[in-house]
Amino acid sequence: MRIVTYGAACSLDGFIARPDGAVDWLIFTKDAQAIMADYWQRIDTILMGRKTYEVAAGMGGGGGGGSAGIRTFVFSRTLTSLPGKGVTLVREDAAAFVRQLKQSPGKDICVMGGGDFARSLLAAGVIDEIGLNVHPVLLGSGIPMFLDPKRQVDLELTECRALAGGCAFVNYKVRQAVPAPRQRAKKQRAS
Amino acid sequence: MRIVTYGAACSLDGFIARPDGAVDWLIFTKDAQAIMADYWQRIDTILMGRKTYEVAAGMGGGGGGGSAGIRTFVFSRTLTSLPGKGVTLVREDAAAFVRQLKQSPGKDICVMGGGDFARSLLAAGVIDEIGLNVHPVLLGSGIPMFLDPKRQVDLELTECRALAGGCAFVNYKVRQAVPAPRQRAKKQRAS
Repeated sequence: MRIVTYGAACSLDGFIARPDGAVDWLIFTKDAQAIMADYWQRIDTILMGRKTYEVAAGMGGGGGGGSAGIRTFVFSRTLTSLPGKGVTLVREDAAAFVRQLKQSPGKDICVMGGGDFARSLLAAGVIDEIGLNVHPVLLGSGIPMFLDPKRQVDLELTECRALAGGCAFVNYKVRQAVPAPRQRAKKQRAS
Repeated sequence: MRIVTYGAACSLDGFIARPDGAVDWLIFTKDAQAIMADYWQRIDTILMGRKTYEVAAGMGGGGGGGSAGIRTFVFSRTLTSLPGKGVTLVREDAAAFVRQLKQSPGKDICVMGGGDFARSLLAAGVIDEIGLNVHPVLLGSGIPMFLDPKRQVDLELTECRALAGGCAFVNYKVRQAVPAPRQRAKKQRAS
């Protein structure tokens, strides 16, 4: 089954951007570029919410990050069409769509951007990996990496190392990423 | 000058306890115990806000963590006395008190507990080090490690390693930890 990864650069206090979306505090090092280059080889699909799409489109992205062979899905209940090329609008339930996507053939899947969209997927248990490039700064406020998924999400650390520039890279597998089938199994055993 | 450290075990989403104060998710490993044992050798003073004191006192602590030779200061504008032994109530401005304490002879100083008290000290620029034992879990909600200090705090990563149990230990020096004198110097130059 395809792996769904939620990854981002964030501050030590858990923000992926300043309140106005600015990411001027990001450090671009060869270490981080190497991690990203490896990662782009692994994936062929990007998922994002409307807000992230609008930021990405404004920066000239939003259509697969400029990489050939990348499909991008933008999830929104309010938009009716998207101006960007190579981008598919999804208006149905995100978790159900992603569950189906994971079963279809393809490479891994990247969840990009803000806390709201990622929260809904974390809550639904469809995210398999979380990777953070933690930057050496407290921003104080901004767009949060994590919003409350209303359930505890247990993780397994798979990588932890310092990068150039004082960043800390941590990667996790999500335990019990698919709670719904487990609950069903439990009920079956109890019956 | 004595070093002031703010350290804690926290979840990946930045909480030091559940909303009700519970820390049942903490993992106690020999790695973490060794870090704490080294740390206790470095310090002779603990600073905490009223809320943390009340939790610590309820757990049988609050008087130096049970260690001989540790002085504990509890900061509160509302309390008039403390029942605990070996604990000193400080009702004056915390930042000014800590600045003076750093100049006095002694070992290093530990800031313990919740976000409110640490925020005021981070905002005032009197914290020199931040050490986190990041646990492999998203709690979703709880008592935050960091609240907005209303200024960017730049850090320098000094340690980053995986601990047993899937925890990630990161340690930082705070850059420009004393902003107030810098602002005064700027004004002097401008005049």
